[in-house]
Amino acid sequence: MSTSLVPTNSLITATPDEGRQLAIKMARLVIKATQPDEAIRQKLREIYENDAALLIQISQVVASEFATIAAANNYWSTPE
Amino acid sequence: MSTSLVPTNSLITATPDEGRQLAIKMARLVIKATQPDEAIRQKLREIYENDAALLIQISQVVASEFATIAAANNYWSTPE
Amino acid sequence: MSTSLVPTNSLITATPDEGRQLAIKMARLVIKATQPDEAIRQKLREIYENDAALLIQISQVVASEFATIAAANNYWSTPE
Amino acid sequence: MSTSLVPTNSLITATPDEGRQLAIKMARLVIKATQPDEAIRQKLREIYENDAALLIQISQVVASEFATIAAANNYWSTPE
Amino acid sequence: MSTSLVPTNSLITATPDEGRQLAIKMARLVIKATQPDEAIRQKLREIYENDAALLIQISQVVASEFATIAAANNYWSTPE
Amino acid sequence: MSTSLVPTNSLITATPDEGRQLAIKMARLVIKATQPDEAIRQKLREIYENDAALLIQISQVVASEFATIAAANNYWSTPE
Repeated sequence: MSTSLVPTNSLITATPDEGRQLAIKMARLVIKATQPDEAIRQKLREIYENDAALLIQISQVVASEFATIAAANNYWSTPE
Repeated sequence: MSTSLVPTNSLITATPDEGRQLAIKMARLVIKATQPDEAIRQKLREIYENDAALLIQISQVVASEFATIAAANNYWSTPE
Repeated sequence: MSTSLVPTNSLITATPDEGRQLAIKMARLVIKATQPDEAIRQKLREIYENDAALLIQISQVVASEFATIAAANNYWSTPE
Repeated sequence: MSTSLVPTNSLITATPDEGRQLAIKMARLVIKATQPDEAIRQKLREIYENDAALLIQISQVVASEFATIAAANNYWSTPE
Repeated sequence: MSTSLVPTNSLITATPDEGRQLAIKMARLVIKATQPDEAIRQKLREIYENDAALLIQISQVVASEFATIAAANNYWSTPE
Repeated sequence: MSTSLVPTNSLITATPDEGRQLAIKMARLVIKATQPDEAIRQKLREIYENDAALLIQISQVVASEFATIAAANNYWSTPE
Protein backbone atom coordinates (compact mmCIF):
# COMPACT_ATOMS: atom_id res chain seq x y z
CA MET A 1 0.00 0.00 0.00
CA SER A 2 2.37 2.69 -1.24
CA THR A 3 -0.30 5.23 -2.21
CA SER A 4 -0.36 8.15 0.12
CA LEU A 5 -3.77 8.04 1.78
CA VAL A 6 -3.70 11.60 3.16
CA PRO A 7 -2.20 14.08 0.61
CA THR A 8 -0.19 16.26 3.00
CA ASN A 9 -0.26 13.67 5.80
CA SER A 10 -2.23 16.17 7.88
CA LEU A 11 -5.92 16.80 8.59
CA ILE A 12 -5.33 20.52 9.05
CA THR A 13 -6.61 22.85 6.32
CA ALA A 14 -6.82 26.62 6.10
CA THR A 15 -10.57 26.76 5.54
CA PRO A 16 -13.78 24.67 5.58
CA ASP A 17 -13.78 24.67 1.78
CA GLU A 18 -10.31 23.14 1.71
CA GLY A 19 -11.52 20.71 4.35
CA ARG A 20 -14.24 19.56 1.96
CA GLN A 21 -11.69 19.13 -0.82
CA LEU A 22 -9.55 17.03 1.51
CA ALA A 23 -12.58 14.91 2.46
CA ILE A 24 -13.28 14.20 -1.21
CA LYS A 25 -9.63 13.34 -1.87
CA MET A 26 -9.32 11.06 1.13
CA ALA A 27 -12.42 9.13 0.10
CA ARG A 28 -11.03 8.73 -3.43
CA LEU A 29 -7.64 7.55 -2.18
CA VAL A 30 -9.25 4.69 -0.25
CA ILE A 31 -10.99 3.57 -3.42
CA LYS A 32 -7.68 3.89 -5.28
CA ALA A 33 -5.93 1.77 -2.63
CA THR A 34 -8.66 -0.88 -2.95
CA GLN A 35 -8.79 -0.80 -6.76
CA PRO A 36 -5.42 0.42 -8.03
CA ASP A 37 -6.20 -0.17 -11.72
CA GLU A 38 -6.85 3.27 -13.24
CA ALA A 39 -8.71 1.83 -16.25
CA ILE A 40 -11.19 -0.04 -14.05
CA ARG A 41 -11.69 2.99 -11.82
CA GLN A 42 -12.43 5.09 -14.90
CA LYS A 43 -15.10 2.59 -15.98
CA LEU A 44 -16.63 2.61 -12.51
CA ARG A 45 -16.56 6.42 -12.48
CA GLU A 46 -18.79 6.48 -15.56
CA ILE A 47 -21.22 4.29 -13.65
CA TYR A 48 -21.47 6.23 -10.42
CA GLU A 49 -21.47 9.64 -12.12
CA ASN A 50 -24.74 8.72 -13.76
CA ASP A 51 -26.40 6.93 -10.87
CA ALA A 52 -28.43 8.91 -8.36
CA ALA A 53 -28.08 6.34 -5.58
CA LEU A 54 -24.31 6.12 -5.94
CA LEU A 55 -23.86 9.90 -6.05
CA ILE A 56 -25.87 10.17 -2.82
CA GLN A 57 -23.75 7.42 -1.23
CA ILE A 58 -20.59 9.30 -2.23
CA SER A 59 -21.94 12.44 -0.58
CA GLN A 60 -22.53 10.32 2.55
CA VAL A 61 -18.91 9.21 2.61
CA VAL A 62 -17.69 12.77 2.15
CA ALA A 63 -19.93 13.90 5.03
CA SER A 64 -18.30 11.29 7.28
CA GLU A 65 -14.75 12.17 6.28
CA PHE A 66 -15.51 15.86 6.69
CA ALA A 67 -16.86 15.34 10.21
CA THR A 68 -13.43 14.09 11.25
CA ILE A 69 -11.55 16.82 9.39
CA ALA A 70 -13.79 19.51 10.86
CA ALA A 71 -13.18 18.19 14.38
CA ALA A 72 -9.43 18.14 13.69
CA ASN A 73 -9.61 21.81 12.73
CA ASN A 74 -11.75 22.66 15.73
CA TYR A 75 -14.44 23.52 13.17
CA TRP A 76 -12.28 26.48 12.02
CA SER A 77 -13.52 27.95 15.33
CA THR A 78 -15.29 31.05 16.64
CA PRO A 79 -18.44 30.28 18.80
CA GLU A 80 -17.97 29.41 22.44
CA MET B 1 -12.33 21.39 -8.54
CA SER B 2 -13.20 25.08 -8.83
CA THR B 3 -16.73 24.81 -7.38
CA SER B 4 -16.92 26.31 -3.96
CA LEU B 5 -17.84 23.43 -1.67
CA VAL B 6 -18.89 25.57 1.31
CA PRO B 7 -20.91 28.65 0.19
CA THR B 8 -19.49 31.23 2.62
CA ASN B 9 -16.43 29.09 3.43
CA SER B 10 -17.66 28.91 7.02
CA LEU B 11 -19.70 26.44 9.06
CA ILE B 12 -21.12 29.20 11.26
CA THR B 13 -24.77 30.12 10.79
CA ALA B 14 -27.07 32.40 12.73
CA THR B 15 -29.67 29.73 13.54
CA PRO B 16 -30.35 25.98 13.42
CA ASP B 17 -32.66 26.53 10.46
CA GLU B 18 -29.88 28.19 8.49
CA GLY B 19 -27.63 25.33 9.62
CA ARG B 20 -30.04 22.88 7.97
CA GLN B 21 -30.02 24.93 4.78
CA LEU B 22 -26.23 24.88 4.79
CA ALA B 23 -26.26 21.09 5.33
CA ILE B 24 -28.50 20.64 2.29
CA LYS B 25 -26.32 22.95 0.17
CA MET B 26 -23.07 21.28 1.19
CA ALA B 27 -24.45 17.84 0.29
CA ARG B 28 -25.57 19.16 -3.11
CA LEU B 29 -22.21 20.78 -3.83
CA VAL B 30 -20.41 17.46 -3.38
CA ILE B 31 -22.73 15.88 -5.91
CA LYS B 32 -22.14 18.85 -8.23
CA ALA B 33 -18.36 18.43 -7.86
CA THR B 34 -18.69 14.73 -8.69
CA GLN B 35 -21.12 15.21 -11.57
CA PRO B 36 -20.62 18.73 -12.97
CA ASP B 37 -23.00 18.31 -15.93
CA GLU B 38 -26.18 20.22 -15.04
CA ALA B 39 -28.29 18.34 -17.58
CA ILE B 40 -27.37 14.95 -16.12
CA ARG B 41 -27.94 16.19 -12.57
CA GLN B 42 -31.40 17.44 -13.62
CA LYS B 43 -32.23 13.97 -14.98
CA LEU B 44 -31.02 12.32 -11.78
CA ARG B 45 -33.02 14.80 -9.72
CA GLU B 46 -36.21 13.61 -11.38
CA ILE B 47 -35.27 10.09 -10.33
CA TYR B 48 -34.50 10.70 -6.66
CA GLU B 49 -37.39 13.12 -6.16
CA ASN B 50 -39.77 10.29 -6.91
CA ASP B 51 -38.01 7.47 -5.11
CA ALA B 52 -38.75 6.85 -1.44
CA ALA B 53 -35.44 5.05 -0.77
CA LEU B 54 -33.36 7.82 -2.34
CA LEU B 55 -35.22 10.59 -0.52
CA ILE B 56 -34.57 8.79 2.76
CA GLN B 57 -30.89 8.39 1.86
CA ILE B 58 -30.69 12.12 1.11
CA SER B 59 -32.17 12.88 4.53
CA GLN B 60 -29.46 10.63 6.01
CA VAL B 61 -26.72 12.64 4.32
CA VAL B 62 -28.24 15.91 5.51
CA ALA B 63 -28.40 14.53 9.07
CA SER B 64 -24.67 13.76 8.90
CA GLU B 65 -23.70 17.15 7.50
CA PHE B 66 -25.91 18.87 10.05
CA ALA B 67 -24.25 17.01 12.95
CA THR B 68 -20.95 18.66 12.00
CA ILE B 69 -22.48 22.08 11.45
CA ALA B 70 -24.35 21.90 14.77
CA ALA B 71 -21.14 21.01 16.60
CA ALA B 72 -19.36 23.91 14.88
CA ASN B 73 -22.06 26.25 16.17
CA ASN B 74 -21.92 24.74 19.64
CA TYR B 75 -25.51 23.65 18.95
CA TRP B 76 -26.54 27.32 18.97
CA SER B 77 -26.05 26.85 22.77
CA THR B 78 -27.96 27.33 26.01
CA PRO B 79 -28.04 24.14 28.25
CA GLU B 80 -25.07 23.42 30.46
CA MET C 1 -36.36 26.98 0.16
CA SER C 2 -39.02 28.73 2.21
CA THR C 3 -40.05 25.71 4.31
CA SER C 4 -38.88 26.03 7.85
CA LEU C 5 -36.45 23.17 8.36
CA VAL C 6 -36.40 23.32 12.18
CA PRO C 7 -39.92 23.93 13.60
CA THR C 8 -39.03 26.31 16.45
CA ASN C 9 -35.61 27.12 14.97
CA SER C 10 -34.03 25.55 18.06
CA LEU C 11 -32.63 22.14 18.96
CA ILE C 12 -33.61 22.54 22.61
CA THR C 13 -36.52 20.43 23.87
CA ALA C 14 -37.90 19.86 27.34
CA THR C 15 -37.46 16.09 27.33
CA PRO C 16 -35.88 13.17 25.40
CA ASP C 17 -39.33 12.21 24.12
CA GLU C 18 -39.81 15.67 22.60
CA GLY C 19 -36.27 15.37 21.25
CA ARG C 20 -37.34 12.22 19.38
CA GLN C 21 -40.38 14.02 17.99
CA LEU C 22 -38.15 16.85 16.79
CA ALA C 23 -35.78 14.32 15.17
CA ILE C 24 -38.68 12.78 13.24
CA LYS C 25 -39.98 16.20 12.16
CA MET C 26 -36.55 17.43 11.05
CA ALA C 27 -36.04 14.32 8.92
CA ARG C 28 -39.47 14.82 7.32
CA LEU C 29 -38.83 18.50 6.60
CA VAL C 30 -35.71 17.66 4.59
CA ILE C 31 -37.75 15.25 2.48
CA LYS C 32 -40.42 17.95 2.08
CA ALA C 33 -37.78 20.47 0.98
CA THR C 34 -36.46 17.97 -1.58
CA GLN C 35 -39.89 16.85 -2.81
CA PRO C 36 -42.35 19.70 -2.14
CA ASP C 37 -45.29 18.05 -3.96
CA GLU C 38 -47.65 16.76 -1.23
CA ALA C 39 -49.39 14.32 -3.59
CA ILE C 40 -46.12 12.64 -4.57
CA ARG C 41 -44.97 12.49 -0.94
CA GLN C 42 -48.28 10.83 -0.01
CA LYS C 43 -47.71 8.19 -2.70
CA LEU C 44 -44.15 7.57 -1.47
CA ARG C 45 -45.41 7.35 2.12
CA GLU C 46 -47.63 4.43 1.15
CA ILE C 47 -44.53 2.74 -0.22
CA TYR C 48 -42.19 3.17 2.73
CA GLU C 49 -44.87 2.46 5.35
CA ASN C 50 -45.16 -1.03 3.96
CA ASP C 51 -41.53 -1.75 3.29
CA ALA C 52 -39.38 -3.24 6.05
CA ALA C 53 -36.10 -2.01 4.57
CA LEU C 54 -37.34 1.56 4.20
CA LEU C 55 -38.82 1.66 7.70
CA ILE C 56 -35.47 0.53 9.08
CA GLN C 57 -33.67 3.19 7.03
CA ILE C 58 -36.03 5.83 8.40
CA SER C 59 -35.23 4.71 11.93
CA GLN C 60 -31.54 5.10 11.02
CA VAL C 61 -32.07 8.69 9.94
CA VAL C 62 -34.01 9.46 13.12
CA ALA C 63 -31.19 7.95 15.20
CA SER C 64 -28.70 10.30 13.50
CA GLU C 65 -30.84 13.41 13.93
CA PHE C 66 -31.50 12.47 17.55
CA ALA C 67 -27.77 12.11 18.28
CA THR C 68 -27.33 15.80 17.41
CA ILE C 69 -30.42 16.91 19.32
CA ALA C 70 -29.38 14.91 22.38
CA ALA C 71 -25.92 16.50 22.34
CA ALA C 72 -27.52 19.95 22.02
CA ASN C 73 -29.57 19.23 25.13
CA ASN C 74 -26.56 17.84 26.99
CA TYR C 75 -28.44 14.54 26.97
CA TRP C 76 -31.04 16.09 29.31
CA SER C 77 -28.21 15.59 31.86
CA THR C 78 -27.58 13.99 35.24
CA PRO C 79 -24.53 11.57 35.29
CA GLU C 80 -21.08 13.03 35.70
CA MET D 1 -47.93 11.24 17.49
CA SER D 2 -49.20 10.03 20.85
CA THR D 3 -46.88 7.01 21.15
CA SER D 4 -44.24 7.58 23.73
CA LEU D 5 -40.96 7.52 21.83
CA VAL D 6 -38.70 7.09 24.87
CA PRO D 7 -40.20 4.62 27.42
CA THR D 8 -39.26 6.39 30.64
CA ASN D 9 -38.61 9.72 28.88
CA SER D 10 -34.97 9.46 29.96
CA LEU D 11 -31.75 8.21 28.37
CA ILE D 12 -30.32 7.18 31.73
CA THR D 13 -30.09 3.46 32.47
CA ALA D 14 -28.48 1.54 35.30
CA THR D 15 -26.17 -0.55 33.11
CA PRO D 16 -24.85 -0.94 29.54
CA ASP D 17 -27.11 -3.95 29.08
CA GLU D 18 -30.19 -1.88 29.92
CA GLY D 19 -28.79 0.79 27.61
CA ARG D 20 -28.83 -1.76 24.77
CA GLN D 21 -32.40 -2.71 25.60
CA LEU D 22 -33.38 0.95 25.51
CA ALA D 23 -31.63 1.36 22.13
CA ILE D 24 -33.64 -1.53 20.71
CA LYS D 25 -36.90 -0.15 22.11
CA MET D 26 -36.28 3.36 20.85
CA ALA D 27 -35.59 2.08 17.33
CA ARG D 28 -38.80 0.04 17.42
CA LEU D 29 -40.87 2.98 18.65
CA VAL D 30 -39.84 5.08 15.66
CA ILE D 31 -41.00 2.32 13.34
CA LYS D 32 -44.24 2.08 15.33
CA ALA D 33 -44.75 5.85 15.02
CA THR D 34 -44.19 5.62 11.25
CA GLN D 35 -46.32 2.48 10.75
CA PRO D 36 -48.88 2.35 13.58
CA ASP D 37 -50.79 -0.64 12.18
CA GLU D 38 -49.81 -3.64 14.35
CA ALA D 39 -50.91 -6.17 11.74
CA ILE D 40 -48.71 -4.64 9.05
CA ARG D 41 -45.75 -4.39 11.42
CA GLN D 42 -46.20 -8.09 12.29
CA LYS D 43 -46.07 -8.97 8.58
CA LEU D 44 -42.93 -6.87 8.10
CA ARG D 45 -41.35 -8.48 11.18
CA GLU D 46 -41.63 -11.87 9.52
CA ILE D 47 -39.76 -10.42 6.57
CA TYR D 48 -36.84 -8.82 8.38
CA GLU D 49 -36.43 -11.66 10.88
CA ASN D 50 -35.54 -13.92 7.99
CA ASP D 51 -33.44 -11.55 5.95
CA ALA D 52 -29.72 -11.28 6.63
CA ALA D 53 -29.39 -7.80 5.12
CA LEU D 54 -32.28 -6.40 7.16
CA LEU D 55 -31.04 -7.94 10.39
CA ILE D 56 -27.66 -6.34 9.82
CA GLN D 57 -29.32 -2.99 9.10
CA ILE D 58 -31.27 -3.28 12.34
CA SER D 59 -28.06 -3.90 14.23
CA GLN D 60 -26.69 -0.74 12.59
CA VAL D 61 -29.61 1.31 13.86
CA VAL D 62 -29.22 -0.11 17.36
CA ALA D 63 -25.50 0.76 17.28
CA SER D 64 -26.37 4.36 16.46
CA GLU D 65 -29.03 4.68 19.15
CA PHE D 66 -26.71 3.07 21.66
CA ALA D 67 -23.91 5.54 20.89
CA THR D 68 -26.18 8.36 22.06
CA ILE D 69 -27.42 6.46 25.12
CA ALA D 70 -23.87 5.52 26.10
CA ALA D 71 -22.76 9.16 25.86
CA ALA D 72 -25.75 10.21 27.97
CA ASN D 73 -24.66 7.74 30.65
CA ASN D 74 -21.04 8.87 30.41
CA TYR D 75 -20.33 5.31 29.19
CA TRP D 76 -21.26 4.01 32.67
CA SER D 77 -17.81 5.46 33.53
CA THR D 78 -14.53 4.43 35.11
CA PRO D 79 -11.41 5.15 32.87
CA GLU D 80 -9.96 8.65 32.90
CA MET E 1 -35.57 -10.15 26.06
CA SER E 2 -33.60 -12.36 28.43
CA THR E 3 -30.43 -12.57 26.30
CA SER E 4 -27.66 -10.58 27.81
CA LEU E 5 -26.88 -7.86 25.28
CA VAL E 6 -23.50 -6.88 26.72
CA PRO E 7 -21.48 -9.96 27.83
CA THR E 8 -19.93 -8.56 31.01
CA ASN E 9 -22.43 -5.70 31.23
CA SER E 10 -19.54 -3.28 30.79
CA LEU E 11 -17.97 -1.43 27.88
CA ILE E 12 -14.54 -1.49 29.49
CA THR E 13 -11.93 -3.80 28.00
CA ALA E 14 -8.22 -4.21 28.67
CA THR E 15 -7.09 -3.51 25.11
CA PRO E 16 -8.28 -2.24 21.70
CA ASP E 17 -8.23 -5.81 20.40
CA GLU E 18 -10.62 -6.92 23.13
CA GLY E 19 -12.68 -3.84 22.33
CA ARG E 20 -13.05 -5.09 18.76
CA GLN E 21 -14.08 -8.52 20.00
CA LEU E 22 -16.70 -6.89 22.21
CA ALA E 23 -17.96 -4.82 19.26
CA ILE E 24 -18.42 -7.97 17.20
CA LYS E 25 -20.20 -9.75 20.05
CA MET E 26 -22.51 -6.85 20.79
CA ALA E 27 -23.55 -6.64 17.14
CA ARG E 28 -24.25 -10.37 17.10
CA LEU E 29 -26.30 -10.25 20.29
CA VAL E 30 -28.66 -7.67 18.78
CA ILE E 31 -29.24 -9.98 15.83
CA LYS E 32 -29.78 -12.87 18.27
CA ALA E 33 -32.31 -10.80 20.22
CA THR E 34 -34.15 -9.99 16.98
CA GLN E 35 -33.97 -13.51 15.55
CA PRO E 36 -33.67 -15.95 18.50
CA ASP E 37 -33.99 -19.09 16.36
CA GLU E 38 -30.47 -20.58 16.12
CA ALA E 39 -31.33 -22.66 13.05
CA ILE E 40 -32.52 -19.63 11.11
CA ARG E 41 -29.51 -17.58 12.17
CA GLN E 42 -27.25 -20.41 10.98
CA LYS E 43 -28.94 -20.34 7.57
CA LEU E 44 -28.55 -16.57 7.36
CA ARG E 45 -24.90 -16.85 8.40
CA GLU E 46 -24.22 -18.99 5.36
CA ILE E 47 -25.72 -16.22 3.25
CA TYR E 48 -23.81 -13.26 4.63
CA GLU E 49 -20.50 -15.13 4.91
CA ASN E 50 -20.50 -15.49 1.16
CA ASP E 51 -21.83 -12.10 0.19
CA ALA E 52 -19.41 -9.21 -0.30
CA ALA E 53 -22.03 -6.51 0.32
CA LEU E 54 -23.22 -8.10 3.56
CA LEU E 55 -19.70 -8.64 4.88
CA ILE E 56 -18.96 -4.97 4.23
CA GLN E 57 -22.18 -3.95 6.01
CA ILE E 58 -21.18 -6.09 8.99
CA SER E 59 -17.83 -4.34 9.13
CA GLN E 60 -19.75 -1.04 9.14
CA VAL E 61 -21.79 -2.11 12.15
CA VAL E 62 -18.66 -3.24 13.99
CA ALA E 63 -17.03 0.13 13.24
CA SER E 64 -20.00 1.90 14.83
CA GLU E 65 -20.08 -0.29 17.93
CA PHE E 66 -16.32 0.06 18.29
CA ALA E 67 -16.51 3.87 18.15
CA THR E 68 -18.66 3.78 21.31
CA ILE E 69 -16.50 1.19 23.05
CA ALA E 70 -13.31 3.12 22.21
CA ALA E 71 -14.79 6.32 23.64
CA ALA E 72 -15.82 4.43 26.79
CA ASN E 73 -12.22 3.30 27.21
CA ASN E 74 -10.88 6.77 26.51
CA TYR E 75 -9.28 5.20 23.43
CA TRP E 76 -7.00 3.17 25.71
CA SER E 77 -5.28 6.57 26.12
CA THR E 78 -1.85 8.16 25.75
CA PRO E 79 -1.82 11.29 23.44
CA GLU E 80 -2.90 14.63 24.92
CA MET F 1 -11.63 -15.75 17.31
CA SER F 2 -7.84 -16.00 17.36
CA THR F 3 -7.18 -13.44 14.61
CA SER F 4 -5.73 -10.29 16.00
CA LEU F 5 -8.29 -7.59 15.24
CA VAL F 6 -6.00 -4.62 15.84
CA PRO F 7 -2.48 -5.22 14.41
CA THR F 8 -0.41 -3.62 17.18
CA ASN F 9 -3.27 -3.72 19.68
CA SER F 10 -3.18 0.07 19.76
CA LEU F 11 -5.04 2.87 18.00
CA ILE F 12 -2.05 5.18 18.16
CA THR F 13 -0.19 5.89 14.92
CA ALA F 14 2.59 8.31 14.07
CA THR F 15 0.71 10.14 11.33
CA PRO F 16 -2.74 10.55 9.72
CA ASP F 17 -1.57 8.49 6.75
CA GLU F 18 -0.68 5.59 9.03
CA GLY F 19 -4.04 6.12 10.71
CA ARG F 20 -5.75 5.57 7.36
CA GLN F 21 -3.73 2.40 6.80
CA LEU F 22 -4.79 1.16 10.22
CA ALA F 23 -8.44 1.96 9.42
CA ILE F 24 -8.24 -0.11 6.24
CA LYS F 25 -6.57 -3.01 8.07
CA MET F 26 -9.03 -3.00 10.94
CA ALA F 27 -11.97 -3.12 8.52
CA ARG F 28 -10.38 -6.03 6.67
CA LEU F 29 -9.68 -7.95 9.87
CA VAL F 30 -13.37 -7.87 10.82
CA ILE F 31 -14.24 -9.36 7.45
CA LYS F 32 -11.51 -11.96 7.96
CA ALA F 33 -12.91 -12.84 11.40
CA THR F 34 -16.38 -13.24 9.86
CA GLN F 35 -15.23 -15.15 6.79
CA PRO F 36 -11.94 -16.92 7.67
CA ASP F 37 -11.71 -18.87 4.40
CA GLU F 38 -9.01 -17.13 2.32
CA ALA F 39 -10.25 -18.66 -0.95
CA ILE F 40 -13.77 -17.34 -0.46
CA ARG F 41 -12.48 -13.90 0.55
CA GLN F 42 -10.36 -13.82 -2.61
CA LYS F 43 -13.46 -14.56 -4.70
CA LEU F 44 -15.41 -11.83 -2.95
CA ARG F 45 -12.51 -9.41 -3.43
CA GLU F 46 -12.80 -9.83 -7.18
CA ILE F 47 -16.46 -8.88 -6.85
CA TYR F 48 -16.14 -5.73 -4.75
CA GLU F 49 -13.03 -4.48 -6.58
CA ASN F 50 -15.11 -4.19 -9.71
CA ASP F 51 -18.31 -2.87 -8.22
CA ALA F 52 -18.76 0.88 -7.79
CA ALA F 53 -21.38 0.55 -5.03
CA LEU F 54 -19.24 -1.83 -2.97
CA LEU F 55 -16.11 0.28 -3.34
CA ILE F 56 -18.05 3.29 -2.08
CA GLN F 57 -19.40 1.26 0.85
CA ILE F 58 -15.85 0.19 1.71
CA SER F 59 -14.78 3.82 1.73
CA GLN F 60 -17.68 4.49 4.12
CA VAL F 61 -16.45 1.83 6.53
CA VAL F 62 -12.91 3.20 6.39
CA ALA F 63 -14.25 6.70 7.11
CA SER F 64 -15.97 5.36 10.24
CA GLU F 65 -12.94 3.45 11.49
CA PHE F 66 -10.72 6.45 10.80
CA ALA F 67 -12.99 8.76 12.83
CA THR F 68 -12.27 6.65 15.90
CA ILE F 69 -8.55 6.37 15.19
CA ALA F 70 -8.27 10.12 14.58
CA ALA F 71 -10.01 10.84 17.90
CA ALA F 72 -7.65 8.40 19.65
CA ASN F 73 -4.70 10.34 18.26
CA ASN F 74 -6.24 13.67 19.17
CA TYR F 75 -6.34 14.31 15.42
CA TRP F 76 -2.50 14.40 15.40
CA SER F 77 -3.13 17.82 17.04
CA THR F 78 -2.23 21.47 16.53
CA PRO F 79 -5.32 23.84 16.41
CA GLU F 80 -6.86 24.96 19.68
